[in-house]
Amino acid sequence: MTPPQRTEDRPLAALLAPDVLALLEESPQDVAAETEELHARDLAVIAEALEEDQMKLLLRVLPPARAADVLEYLDEEVRTTLLEEMSTAQAAQLVAEMTPDDRADVLDDLEEERADEILSEIPAEARRETERLLAYEPDTAGGLMTTEFVAVPGSLTVEHALAQVRTLARGRKEAMHAIYVVDDDGALRGVLSLRELLVAPEGVPLSEVAWTEVVAVPASADRERVAQLTSEYDLVAVPVVDERRRLLGVITVDDVIDAIVEEQTEDVQRLGAVQPLESPYLQAGFWELLRKRGGWLVVLFIGEMFTGTAMRHFEDTLARALVLTTFIPLIISSGGNSGSQSASLITRALAVGDVELSDAFRIMRRELLQGVFLGVFLGVIGFARALLWGTSSAVAAVVALTLVLVVICGTVVGGSLPLVFTRFGFDPAVASSPFVASLVDVAGIVIYFSIAIQLLQLG
Amino acid sequence: MTPPQRTEDRPLAALLAPDVLALLEESPQDVAAETEELHARDLAVIAEALEEDQMKLLLRVLPPARAADVLEYLDEEVRTTLLEEMSTAQAAQLVAEMTPDDRADVLDDLEEERADEILSEIPAEARRETERLLAYEPDTAGGLMTTEFVAVPGSLTVEHALAQVRTLARGRKEAMHAIYVVDDDGALRGVLSLRELLVAPEGVPLSEVAWTEVVAVPASADRERVAQLTSEYDLVAVPVVDERRRLLGVITVDDVIDAIVEEQTEDVQRLGAVQPLESPYLQAGFWELLRKRGGWLVVLFIGEMFTGTAMRHFEDTLARALVLTTFIPLIISSGGNSGSQSASLITRALAVGDVELSDAFRIMRRELLQGVFLGVFLGVIGFARALLWGTSSAVAAVVALTLVLVVICGTVVGGSLPLVFTRFGFDPAVASSPFVASLVDVAGIVIYFSIAIQLLQLG
Repeated sequence: MTPPQRTEDRPLAALLAPDVLALLEESPQDVAAETEELHARDLAVIAEALEEDQMKLLLRVLPPARAADVLEYLDEEVRTTLLEEMSTAQAAQLVAEMTPDDRADVLDDLEEERADEILSEIPAEARRETERLLAYEPDTAGGLMTTEFVAVPGSLTVEHALAQVRTLARGRKEAMHAIYVVDDDGALRGVLSLRELLVAPEGVPLSEVAWTEVVAVPASADRERVAQLTSEYDLVAVPVVDERRRLLGVITVDDVIDAIVEEQTEDVQRLGAVQPLESPYLQAGFWELLRKRGGWLVVLFIGEMFTGTAMRHFEDTLARALVLTTFIPLIISSGGNSGSQSASLITRALAVGDVELSDAFRIMRRELLQGVFLGVFLGVIGFARALLWGTSSAVAAVVALTLVLVVICGTVVGGSLPLVFTRFGFDPAVASSPFVASLVDVAGIVIYFSIAIQLLQLG
Repeated sequence: MTPPQRTEDRPLAALLAPDVLALLEESPQDVAAETEELHARDLAVIAEALEEDQMKLLLRVLPPARAADVLEYLDEEVRTTLLEEMSTAQAAQLVAEMTPDDRADVLDDLEEERADEILSEIPAEARRETERLLAYEPDTAGGLMTTEFVAVPGSLTVEHALAQVRTLARGRKEAMHAIYVVDDDGALRGVLSLRELLVAPEGVPLSEVAWTEVVAVPASADRERVAQLTSEYDLVAVPVVDERRRLLGVITVDDVIDAIVEEQTEDVQRLGAVQPLESPYLQAGFWELLRKRGGWLVVLFIGEMFTGTAMRHFEDTLARALVLTTFIPLIISSGGNSGSQSASLITRALAVGDVELSDAFRIMRRELLQGVFLGVFLGVIGFARALLWGTSSAVAAVVALTLVLVVICGTVVGGSLPLVFTRFGFDPAVASSPFVASLVDVAGIVIYFSIAIQLLQLG
């Protein structure tokens, strides 16, 4: 079947799913040939538009290597269901065809018992390799890497290396982004791209044409660090080494991109005071979603109760100057807003490596000064507005002065919390906008009434 | 100089800068050879640790191609200063050596007059190419692409194509991620990796071994779309085509990663109610930072003033039931927090393509239901807390009922605003936590007092 030409993504599934369905029903033996030009991801999108039985049939009529590719691109939930429901033999055949890192990821999503069943039926070498990969934490370099890579001794000449690479390339599925050069102990000594190997002069040993300064990470490196290095050095693959610098695996750039996107999703959710979801929004279970939001909401609610405690403390003041209450939401939201701004800026700057803990002093000075300027600005507007409302100039002055202090409080708390969390090993994004706002709300009320008591002599 | 072995990034500049400085002073002619194994990015980090004059000297003693590489990795601000202060001839020589896309990016950072001066001294062909790239918006596919790519006719045999690729590879700097196959009209007809070309059988025409289903984008495609396609299809390069599907350029994965990180930084800043900064936090000018925060703070401040208007409207009610005021911060923050959660979840889901506008109905139903559950939950806690504070059960009931409605209001407003903004062509992240909170604050006060008037018969 001729795939439609395209310059943008289009609802491919809608376009081709009926054709694939017809083929599956009438001449399943032709499906493989008719769809072979499609990107495995597109075939996965088509598969997802089919009924479950047809999906299973599709995976059976495709060659195992191709079916494994399609399986990798399927939605996590769909894939897990399929692997749980098909025969263990079929599942093992498909899983065995996957690249080692995808195999580990896919099995990690299954119930442990089912994963063990499938593992026990795949070839021994692939099984051991997978078990080794499964031992790494998923958000570390070890959890991202694949064990398929091309390593050649540095003593080989360029033409011998090329011949060896050609042989190795036939059996591999992962793109071959870089050729790694190792010494006799297997330690990583150099790297060069396939393009560089192609144009290197014949007869020269590889060690002379390779780059000897190789960026590598230990298996325990955080995936955020891997992402930073990839971005800083424009890498297409990051080698993972052990303490003796022997090559353990390679992280390919597509997995780095997935890691970057996941890290960012977690950060945005944390900043919005949601505990990171494990699946996309619409696929997350209703109760999971409720739990991951409810937890934080209750914590924030309890924190916010202190505003009530504080206000009760100032009940006499309140009763004598009721007009003060009408400014409370304005005052506390101003503190919360300036705090949200600082928290977002600093959290993101920490995530991309623009600032580090050692910049804490510069950051705090900057946030303090920003707070002073922004606070005075809002204070002036607030003063004018209060007068326009017919508020006495004394109360207007209380409001203005409070705004200055509350905004400063916001920028300082919002700017420092991400640093404090980082210092104590937490994710800085836990300093979410609502979290900062809650802290600043309580402070705002105490500041407001303290100033009112002083200036209006309500004490 | 032997670079120190490493498995993690270390303060390389601190380690090597003194050596490079000594070399520059004693035997500048040796600097190039002594540093040739270093990654250009590392040499850039070292350069940044030097004084400006030494930096200029370093760029002069390196071969132009190498110096251009280093220049590309320098901090934007440092690079701009250097290019403004060095002779036009030297600047032109360095800029001419850059890859076309980096050349365009670098010139885009300069004052227009200076960029034109430099452009006028680089070779005519490179100048035209650069001017063409500069015409695209920086956040579109055209603005990201480079015009260096390898395109070969599909009629060539595998071995002829390989020979041609080898010739082309010598002159190129960009990694050669993919070989594009074009027909007689120059239209894109296929793609294959260098690895696939290496292992393809000799004698076969390229059109038979290439993948014919190529994911490509028009030059006007948004960079967010390019990022989504790269991630979905695990691409290492995205071809850019015109309306007749002729190849205009190629976007390499390192530029896609930069685009992903920048998009995400903008989203986090918008979600925190900061207009996106143009440079990293510590490099952004104090006044720029102030402007980009102050603008939103004032808008939110003005919006929040309606809480005051609303409260004035209910002044009589307030006076008769002063106890109501002590719950105001608790109530409005609960609405703001649940709204922040929804806005963050939906904004992110839209950014990564997990949801689309067509899912609006499902999203709203989900958010409404989440709001009901979360609201009832907080309402129960709020009711208990109010009773514990010795509040009358009538007032406690007002607080509880208000909490239910305010939280629902939060999830519905927070969940729908990103969709509304997307629908009207704005960035969904403009629905920031503070923005949603401001809207919900005003609604919260109106709901609170309306319920109080009804239930407590204060009307």
